[in-house]
Amino acid sequence: MKQLQKVNSPADIKKMSVSKLKELAQDMRDAIIKGVHTHGGHYGPDLGIVETTIALHYVFNSPSDKFIFDVSHQCYPHKMITGRKDKFLTEEGSKKYTGYTNPDESEHDFFTVGHTSTSISLATGLAKARDLQGQKGNVIAIIGDGSMSGGEAFEGLNNAAELGTNFIVIFNDNDQSIAENHGGMYLKFKELRETNGQAEDNFFRAMGLDYRFVADGNDVEAMIKALEDIKDIDHPIVLHVVTQKGKGDKAAEINKEAYHWILPDSVDTSTWGESYEQMAANYMLEEMKHDPSLIAICPAVPGGLGWTKENRDKAGKQYWDPGIAEEQAVAMAAGLAKGGAKPVIFDIGTFLQRTYDQLIQDLCINSNPATIISASLNGGISDADVTHSGAFDMAMMGSIPNLLVLSPASKDEFMDMFKWSIKQTKQPVVIRTGPVVREINTGATFDGDLSYQIIEKGNQVAVLGLGNFYDLAVQVKDELAKKLGIKATLINPRFSSGIDEKILQALAKNHQLVVTLEDGILDGGFGEKVARFYGPSAMKTLAIGQRRENTDRVPYEELVQRYHLSPELIVRDIKNILE
Amino acid sequence: MKQLQKVNSPADIKKMSVSKLKELAQDMRDAIIKGVHTHGGHYGPDLGIVETTIALHYVFNSPSDKFIFDVSHQCYPHKMITGRKDKFLTEEGSKKYTGYTNPDESEHDFFTVGHTSTSISLATGLAKARDLQGQKGNVIAIIGDGSMSGGEAFEGLNNAAELGTNFIVIFNDNDQSIAENHGGMYLKFKELRETNGQAEDNFFRAMGLDYRFVADGNDVEAMIKALEDIKDIDHPIVLHVVTQKGKGDKAAEINKEAYHWILPDSVDTSTWGESYEQMAANYMLEEMKHDPSLIAICPAVPGGLGWTKENRDKAGKQYWDPGIAEEQAVAMAAGLAKGGAKPVIFDIGTFLQRTYDQLIQDLCINSNPATIISASLNGGISDADVTHSGAFDMAMMGSIPNLLVLSPASKDEFMDMFKWSIKQTKQPVVIRTGPVVREINTGATFDGDLSYQIIEKGNQVAVLGLGNFYDLAVQVKDELAKKLGIKATLINPRFSSGIDEKILQALAKNHQLVVTLEDGILDGGFGEKVARFYGPSAMKTLAIGQRRENTDRVPYEELVQRYHLSPELIVRDIKNILE
Repeated sequence: MKQLQKVNSPADIKKMSVSKLKELAQDMRDAIIKGVHTHGGHYGPDLGIVETTIALHYVFNSPSDKFIFDVSHQCYPHKMITGRKDKFLTEEGSKKYTGYTNPDESEHDFFTVGHTSTSISLATGLAKARDLQGQKGNVIAIIGDGSMSGGEAFEGLNNAAELGTNFIVIFNDNDQSIAENHGGMYLKFKELRETNGQAEDNFFRAMGLDYRFVADGNDVEAMIKALEDIKDIDHPIVLHVVTQKGKGDKAAEINKEAYHWILPDSVDTSTWGESYEQMAANYMLEEMKHDPSLIAICPAVPGGLGWTKENRDKAGKQYWDPGIAEEQAVAMAAGLAKGGAKPVIFDIGTFLQRTYDQLIQDLCINSNPATIISASLNGGISDADVTHSGAFDMAMMGSIPNLLVLSPASKDEFMDMFKWSIKQTKQPVVIRTGPVVREINTGATFDGDLSYQIIEKGNQVAVLGLGNFYDLAVQVKDELAKKLGIKATLINPRFSSGIDEKILQALAKNHQLVVTLEDGILDGGFGEKVARFYGPSAMKTLAIGQRRENTDRVPYEELVQRYHLSPELIVRDIKNILE
Repeated sequence: MKQLQKVNSPADIKKMSVSKLKELAQDMRDAIIKGVHTHGGHYGPDLGIVETTIALHYVFNSPSDKFIFDVSHQCYPHKMITGRKDKFLTEEGSKKYTGYTNPDESEHDFFTVGHTSTSISLATGLAKARDLQGQKGNVIAIIGDGSMSGGEAFEGLNNAAELGTNFIVIFNDNDQSIAENHGGMYLKFKELRETNGQAEDNFFRAMGLDYRFVADGNDVEAMIKALEDIKDIDHPIVLHVVTQKGKGDKAAEINKEAYHWILPDSVDTSTWGESYEQMAANYMLEEMKHDPSLIAICPAVPGGLGWTKENRDKAGKQYWDPGIAEEQAVAMAAGLAKGGAKPVIFDIGTFLQRTYDQLIQDLCINSNPATIISASLNGGISDADVTHSGAFDMAMMGSIPNLLVLSPASKDEFMDMFKWSIKQTKQPVVIRTGPVVREINTGATFDGDLSYQIIEKGNQVAVLGLGNFYDLAVQVKDELAKKLGIKATLINPRFSSGIDEKILQALAKNHQLVVTLEDGILDGGFGEKVARFYGPSAMKTLAIGQRRENTDRVPYEELVQRYHLSPELIVRDIKNILE
């Protein structure tokens, strides 16, 4: 770590010789390997981009020259050079710095980013702001790892050409997304790699952009030369750079998918049970054997959602990865459903935000019966990064007519819902999962009947525990009995996109308060529908969930206190209302 | 109309000679010119695609071969051939048939479509469904009019290449979006037009697709030949067809933007006052003279939103049209704001649905101070086509942290809000407009203070009239006095993204009921926030707005009855609650 120890800002590497820069690259690589194995995080993408990042900081002058990293999961080398190497070297540093670019951490970062395909668009804004105000400096977007497959990246390229001034896109081509790349574009990128950038029908030139090629982006000297050649260029250009994902760790070079992101070595995953998504995938694989119309669609995040390489191979033509392209995923599912097939989309809830319009237009207005698994891998309310919060999906979908959003309380209920949804042909259905598969038996099957399931009949207070918060409702019920001597009614509402007016009406007879518990943002959520329903009546309501605010890696225990997510705090709130 | 009279289904044109088909084209063109001038609708796009549509139905066998029209605003010739010519020939027909494809009307239509850039993705789904089920038939997406600039079209093309089976994209290149085309891609399309499709760096080939070119898509014979050549093709292909937008009406051929969509001739627009958007655009043009950092961004719908050709020319470099690319519009605005510029996005609310994720991630998480005008040209709750409902924007944005959504009650308030928003540098702001500019004076300026404006103090009942429904609140207040002798409190809440807890708390003292009126979907809307706030208390609430349902060209008067949007119906509801 001799060279890395010397680096506290970009200025420190500008004095180094090429051989020293190569030593630095090795130091940085060692730091990533050790740091990420210890604390977890993105691995292959950062190992691959070490030399390119060194060259960028060597040639350009950040922050007057501006780097915008797409997704920013590959910004670790950038963080090391810009004063944040402790993220990888110390325990304290690993907690202090996020895994993405963050303007609160450094003047060298311009955006808090975590979703894909946005860098070019963001950069066109910075470039246009520069031009409007008569300023100078290079604007450089760095994009790769499958991000080019998202429509926004294309919109950005199409706009970049119109800027007509300095604008640089570094296309970091490591021939891999999270899983393998998909789409016709990537076949052509392969041709470019094989012809030293000379192949016909160049995608970037077809977008009206200038283009250059670097065969080995892991050669720091070659990268410096290529970047020096385009520094201060007076028009938009794409530099196509070939790098090796996972470079420097043989295992990561070979198994690129498994090493895209890794858990800390200390985590023992052998005790982890089957996830909701794995159960769904396994069920589909069985069904596919006799139903050729069944198809799984997963926009580039298959591994964590039950679609391992082995399962993808088993599914064959009945598995489709559209790239990081949720708009395509949902619209294609609409077409599949219209054509008589049975599409099931597997996606992480926060990424479904990219396809809000297709949910409304293509699925719901057209009543196309697709099934969507909206996975909240950390839970809805969680300690996730601000860009990856799972708290928004229910609120986002709660105002879309004709969309049924189910929230299973248990493993059995999930499987019932999943099997029912695939069979039905009436409407689009979202099943919202969670990180914990509950083995409890709520005593009921699901067959499409949207009646609330009354688990225990009581009086005075009714507690509605939605999906991931069903357990919490059970605890609140028990705590109410213990602390206040109230025998509460316990309800599994099962869906968040509407209400069971009949049962809510019936509760009015012998209840004073209805409490809703939901694992997401309150504004636009499930509890507000209940509150509005009872608005004109004497029934009181209490909605428990997340306030309308962004949370960034806040420990869950802190959120419990803030939002009153414990049985004790909720019963205290109930007591105050009843008094 | 001799030939058109003979056509009641595609079978009727298959027997015709080329010269008869040419007569038919003239008949269809005459019908469009007369029909659209009488009833309003899309004009230039449909005049341009007559011959291509005739050739499509002549060569292919709809509906076993499937046509998917992008936006489907250019489906008029298709409607004529598939039994719906009365849309253009009779008064009754003009009311019976929608302006878009509609599976409820005809087996030749597969989707209700109205938003842009979805056709290729939808078609990939139909094609994949065909392949999975071992079926036959051609799947043909027809796209043009700037739709290729939307990211979803790109995602569709990238996926199409992977299908590996029959798949046809007709790229109807009329060198025009609604206004002029934008982006580097269109410069290259120009080269293709000028070289008979031979120019280097072919965009479609760069996406891994086969490609052919037709120089004159208004030549029915040439089109038939080109289509016969690719009928039943065994792989994905793009047929690039050059057509003339507005063909057959000199005025429309020359002024393509004005004739993209036209009002009925009978409508007298001379009495129409200035719109909110025109006021904003005019204000910006004045400010731009001394503030180079101010920039208007309009995703391809400038004419109706104050950015006429004349104003665009005046703004020069301070106007940006990203194409039909709202994701780019919002992310670019985020970059502009970060770079110190002052971006203002002008868009129609329903199209903002395409950029939900960028609103959250790029603007709100990053607190980038862009201003967005969300225009509801027909109003939120309206008789609009189902695909163009303006009822969803407030609910969509209501759960996004850090997004301020303002709803001006009057012209003066709008201008105050707009001027304030451009100056402030704290957060992203949406101003939601409406079709009617109210000249009323609510007696207050807006300076960023989010306190509710109490217009009249009363007791028992408080009425909160949001934005477009402020007038309705005034009427409800009057009706309450007249019918029930109640002197109600009248409030202009001014924003829908949160509540003024202080004033709501204060109302508890001498009010029993708070009524909220909002021009949009109730689920996730403004009224539910108020209902949740009062949930634990004795205060009753009544939320007036649209139920969570799709409405398709339902007359407003019918919606008034359905959702109780009149003072009389609301006061009757209030009476029931108070009793």
